[in-house]
Amino acid sequence: MMRSGLLVRSKFSSIVNEMRPSAIDITLKVLSDPEMISFGGGMPNPESFPVNEILQILNERFPTKGKNMLQYGPINGTESLRNAISEMLLKREGIKISPNNIILTSGSQQGLYMLGKLLADRGDYVITEAPTYVDAIVSFRASGIRMIGVEMDSAGMKTEKLRETLKRYPRPRFIYVIPNFQNPTGITMSLERRKEILEIVEEKGIALIEDDPYGNLRFCGRKIPPIKSLDESGDTIYLGTFSKILSPGLRLGYIAGPDDVIEKLLLEKEAIDIGSSTLSQFIAEEYISRGYLEKHIPKIIKLYKHKRDLMIESFESYFPDNVQFTRPEGGMFIWVTKKGTNTDKMLPFAINRKVVYVVGSAFYPNRGDHSSMRLNFTYSSDENIVEGVKRLASVFRDYS
Amino acid sequence: MMRSGLLVRSKFSSIVNEMRPSAIDITLKVLSDPEMISFGGGMPNPESFPVNEILQILNERFPTKGKNMLQYGPINGTESLRNAISEMLLKREGIKISPNNIILTSGSQQGLYMLGKLLADRGDYVITEAPTYVDAIVSFRASGIRMIGVEMDSAGMKTEKLRETLKRYPRPRFIYVIPNFQNPTGITMSLERRKEILEIVEEKGIALIEDDPYGNLRFCGRKIPPIKSLDESGDTIYLGTFSKILSPGLRLGYIAGPDDVIEKLLLEKEAIDIGSSTLSQFIAEEYISRGYLEKHIPKIIKLYKHKRDLMIESFESYFPDNVQFTRPEGGMFIWVTKKGTNTDKMLPFAINRKVVYVVGSAFYPNRGDHSSMRLNFTYSSDENIVEGVKRLASVFRDYS
Repeated sequence: MMRSGLLVRSKFSSIVNEMRPSAIDITLKVLSDPEMISFGGGMPNPESFPVNEILQILNERFPTKGKNMLQYGPINGTESLRNAISEMLLKREGIKISPNNIILTSGSQQGLYMLGKLLADRGDYVITEAPTYVDAIVSFRASGIRMIGVEMDSAGMKTEKLRETLKRYPRPRFIYVIPNFQNPTGITMSLERRKEILEIVEEKGIALIEDDPYGNLRFCGRKIPPIKSLDESGDTIYLGTFSKILSPGLRLGYIAGPDDVIEKLLLEKEAIDIGSSTLSQFIAEEYISRGYLEKHIPKIIKLYKHKRDLMIESFESYFPDNVQFTRPEGGMFIWVTKKGTNTDKMLPFAINRKVVYVVGSAFYPNRGDHSSMRLNFTYSSDENIVEGVKRLASVFRDYS
Repeated sequence: MMRSGLLVRSKFSSIVNEMRPSAIDITLKVLSDPEMISFGGGMPNPESFPVNEILQILNERFPTKGKNMLQYGPINGTESLRNAISEMLLKREGIKISPNNIILTSGSQQGLYMLGKLLADRGDYVITEAPTYVDAIVSFRASGIRMIGVEMDSAGMKTEKLRETLKRYPRPRFIYVIPNFQNPTGITMSLERRKEILEIVEEKGIALIEDDPYGNLRFCGRKIPPIKSLDESGDTIYLGTFSKILSPGLRLGYIAGPDDVIEKLLLEKEAIDIGSSTLSQFIAEEYISRGYLEKHIPKIIKLYKHKRDLMIESFESYFPDNVQFTRPEGGMFIWVTKKGTNTDKMLPFAINRKVVYVVGSAFYPNRGDHSSMRLNFTYSSDENIVEGVKRLASVFRDYS
């Protein structure tokens, strides 16, 4: 107990009491070692940040607009930024959405948290891909939500397996998918699967959350339209973010959804933080409206494509033959699997050789596969990508 | 139901389903009328924002540190800002707290939300002042928390009433107080009451949340130390914010508390938004470490003291004799009461005469008094303060 009282109950709420540090936290802890090469985090490369463009925006706008940039903004976000996002979604994604159906969030992480709280009561279950984004798991668990994972193949969530799962679990509160360059696998869901999932949720009356943080970062292959753009009902809830195409430090994401969802999210947003940073919103709005975004995305793609290529070439040069890996057409992550290996148990050996990954098991909402790991290719320098893969190759060879 | 399915349950979670727009939202809706004078919001005056200082910080630091300012930061906040806050709390408040016992939040609003979620399960009850901060009510309700209000007088929460309440409700999950220039009343809790509340929570083993958004804005009278500085156990949970001494648009607040509280808040923060704006944190840190904060606070105080004086002088000139009001020694709000009047019912008449306030009843966690209103004196221009009080005086006279 906290003070000298005699209460039996814990000081903390039952949900928070159950919360534990995630595998990501544990991975981050070893990073203070300067010799460590980390493929663990999910950080954009700082070289991808438009520092000069932002400084230009600030210098031109702050003297006259500074007072507005520093004041409280509307709970749902500034009108000018919601307008800019609405236009951007139409132009880049083929998504027709009114600015009134968009709400700004503090990163799409906050969007996930708010949607979990919005759609599910404690103890309710939802369906996700297996594996799925680790901090979606963290976020949904924070509302006491249970997750049922559905297996994936190289075309995304297996719709056949989804149908089977829905027989055993017929009333999920929502289905959560990351169709483009999925975190952690790098896999992109095929157009057929997107259409089929849309059919299933429409048929069964299930809410669908489409998380699209990496869609703008396609290095090769043909763009596949977001599920949201295929959904004429407008019910699909779409999550976007500025973290990968502008800056994660600004903490700006957004949710596009139907009227009633946005209306309730507004009430939640008031309760949670009254609104996201006004300064960040001004920067993002100018970044879009001045055309900087359109000019800058190709630069990020060029940088990341180079790093993905370099990592895959290094795999091919140094990894033993029995190590498999995905070949993502975009995004930030590659999924590496060595059958028969337990990557959880192997991690201390890797850390000992100064290379870090995130264990694959962290990404499974239920029991999961232990033979995989997630590697990030966007953050490390070129030298560290090659050297880190060499180290990891030696760990794969020596550990058994 | 959302789609064509046949589910009986609502689309939304039961907690969110119960959420309703607050009185503040309703007040904000009339502000698009340019002739409206609003004493309703809780906004700082834009003249109080250190626009030049921030532009200087950005110009000097962004070219070299921009990449860091735009990257993800630590979940609990940057070390340099937590160090700066730790020093500031010691120097300004006499609070001894390690930087490791501080976590950054997106405004103190998020701190309130996180603490509600941390300390109470759905259906649990807590104790607050009556009246209390409206968005604390919104925030706690978002976690399904019930509130029991304890009456105040000119020295703050009545400790005698608190003891009585604790006989009927012996196991509150926490007690929430705003000792300095309370929102909405402007009342400051006496040193004796602070000590007594501390004794009570120590004796009964109840968590104490001290919210101090306005403490730096004292216009006159002697500073009274925060409860946190009197608490040798270190258990008091203290909330601070940069919204009133720097900028609300940066969305930066912090919680200072004991180890186990901070450890759990870190897990919550990861689930909710992974961290607050790194850019905002860099600005706040430089603002403190360069001494701008110390130089700037007296300017804000001078501006607000003038506005408080002007509002009170206008009350004395124009209000009917039977209208009572508090005389706050700092902060942003005055509490105005006319016995026998229902300010909820009077509001449409005030809006008709182009002046807006927040109805007093909005600030009561349970049934409350309807004869009061909250007036903000920091946001309006001097002309509007005088004119708005004149209009309100005419409403008081004509409405009955």
